[in-house]
Amino acid sequence: MALRQKKQRTEPKYELLYHPEIPGRGEYIRLVFEATGIPYTDVSNQEKNGYQKVLNLITEANPPAFAPPALLVHGGDYHGKPLVISQTSNILLYLGPKLGLVPEGDEIAKYHVNGLAMTALDFCNEAHDVHHPIDIEQYYEQQKEEAMKKGKAFTKRRIPKFFGYFETVLKANKEGNGMYLVGKSLTYADTTLWQVLEGIEFAFPKTVAKISKTYPLLSSNFRQNIREHKRLKEYLSSDRRLPFSMGIFRHYPELDA
Amino acid sequence: MALRQKKQRTEPKYELLYHPEIPGRGEYIRLVFEATGIPYTDVSNQEKNGYQKVLNLITEANPPAFAPPALLVHGGDYHGKPLVISQTSNILLYLGPKLGLVPEGDEIAKYHVNGLAMTALDFCNEAHDVHHPIDIEQYYEQQKEEAMKKGKAFTKRRIPKFFGYFETVLKANKEGNGMYLVGKSLTYADTTLWQVLEGIEFAFPKTVAKISKTYPLLSSNFRQNIREHKRLKEYLSSDRRLPFSMGIFRHYPELDA
Repeated sequence: MALRQKKQRTEPKYELLYHPEIPGRGEYIRLVFEATGIPYTDVSNQEKNGYQKVLNLITEANPPAFAPPALLVHGGDYHGKPLVISQTSNILLYLGPKLGLVPEGDEIAKYHVNGLAMTALDFCNEAHDVHHPIDIEQYYEQQKEEAMKKGKAFTKRRIPKFFGYFETVLKANKEGNGMYLVGKSLTYADTTLWQVLEGIEFAFPKTVAKISKTYPLLSSNFRQNIREHKRLKEYLSSDRRLPFSMGIFRHYPELDA
Repeated sequence: MALRQKKQRTEPKYELLYHPEIPGRGEYIRLVFEATGIPYTDVSNQEKNGYQKVLNLITEANPPAFAPPALLVHGGDYHGKPLVISQTSNILLYLGPKLGLVPEGDEIAKYHVNGLAMTALDFCNEAHDVHHPIDIEQYYEQQKEEAMKKGKAFTKRRIPKFFGYFETVLKANKEGNGMYLVGKSLTYADTTLWQVLEGIEFAFPKTVAKISKTYPLLSSNFRQNIREHKRLKEYLSSDRRLPFSMGIFRHYPELDA
């Protein structure tokens, strides 16, 4: 108990600034806190009028954020303004060493973790663009025809390309036993890729079912390992874990294989 | 002369691994070397059979790169393989402190520089997707109809959104006098955004001409400052500077406003 109190006193207070009710890009940030048991506040989902606070903080930051998610670190102060960091992989880069989610004392591995997380997030962005290929400010239904064309290209070539790439990475990292992308312990590249794969399976279940066997490390060792991670397992069955719905990853059967 | 020799001995040898003949995403890396006078080899453009070497190095790296650009650092050795770092902003993150292109001793400013560079690169990606909204493995002509729809949304709303965002960032950074995004000296966020703006103007000249006056810091102070940077000015008039053509930024008049 004494240890825990000490820990709480010395750790900064973290606030996640993101849209409410959807996992979205905020989930990549939630996962690293949940995997390590570090307290954080999910402002939009946990505080009354939280989303307005999120929007204000993002605008008032210096530099302002282009879009959520952003991370607010209390106790930090930068040019008299709240310390706000934006861009998903940039937030993960900041938190990685603080949360023990990059290999310790291995400067180069940090760049490898960061690069892999960024590639996983590129995959996420492409999945989003499938249902919004023309205009993100219009509804899916207004660009459905184009989305169906993009869905064909994405399921036929892009999903296999990304799956194949990450399978190769897992294979090349001998000490990871198919469970970790870099080194032999959990990094934020793992939690990020895992969440992208969950989203891809939610949105394109037929495609994933059809090709999974071709990528055994990714589909079995890797995904299973995260699912069985003690703290993440607890989180995934809690009501803090938000289900996929109509955010980045959407299940429109007509866009699947 | 003695100083220069000493410098060459202690500096690692950098090789840029990228496609030949186009500026592309390789240009964001070239610019930071050129702005600081640090020697580098642009392998595809400077070595015989360079592109094959690029492709091999990228595949053989551990982890392999998903796509160029990548940076090869000689003298570095990681798990017995060449030290290769991929993802554009990740390479810039690695080089930033080594080349003096992030504010020194300001840990938080490093994340701000990184986030701003990433947002500039998001803008670059969106500009690319305008001419390839459906399938990057097919020709523009095969998706021209969709591209024209996306061009309308991009020129009408996305270009002004990004311009407005960066104008706000410049305005909020008082000590930068409209010339620097973070702090009072050049960072890789500046060189990266500048190159994106050059590309946007190449691809969408009418749109840029129409709206530039609304964003005076960005259109004048900021862009002019980089153009007049001593080393960059020399580079921009050299034959090492590759012209835009049919890469990420393409000038299809029918996609402009």
